[in-house]
Amino acid sequence: MSQYDYQQIDDIIHSRIRLAIMSVLMAVDEAEFIYLREKVGATDGNLSVHLKKLEEAKYITVKKTFADRKPVTHYKLTQTGIKAFEAYIDNLEKLLKP
Amino acid sequence: MSQYDYQQIDDIIHSRIRLAIMSVLMAVDEAEFIYLREKVGATDGNLSVHLKKLEEAKYITVKKTFADRKPVTHYKLTQTGIKAFEAYIDNLEKLLKP
Repeated sequence: MSQYDYQQIDDIIHSRIRLAIMSVLMAVDEAEFIYLREKVGATDGNLSVHLKKLEEAKYITVKKTFADRKPVTHYKLTQTGIKAFEAYIDNLEKLLKP
Repeated sequence: MSQYDYQQIDDIIHSRIRLAIMSVLMAVDEAEFIYLREKVGATDGNLSVHLKKLEEAKYITVKKTFADRKPVTHYKLTQTGIKAFEAYIDNLEKLLKP
């Protein structure tokens, strides 16, 4: 491994839950809260906190709609989020495969 | 991605600095403090804290010797550490490459 600054790893993505959220969202066009919760294996509260952080970083967008009169929340990666995730993977690979 | 529990990612390894430390130690037989500091890009204090945590988890061993009458500290992965790192990579790949 050449000289490496660990801070090149994006800390917003690197949290285990946020990494799982981002990975799920990379694989689908958009996802509902319940779907994310099932895939990630997090509690409601924990998931909400991390989704909020990703939203604040503008890595995801949140859209609220109604289905059968029930509120449904959809999450989707932004272009910023997709680029950040790709850069994260690149940096991780550089770190792990010297 | 199939159903995934983010907690399968080893939190001891997943911290950015500890991940960098483990990656460096995977590539060498053992490393001195100064070498690790240069490779990881961390401050002395920060690096020490994370090395301590890896030592407490029994992922690394610490050996103190003298070179030219100066104390030198060597760090080395244990078998437990190597296995934990390999499991970490496996789990990360499962998460990132659904």
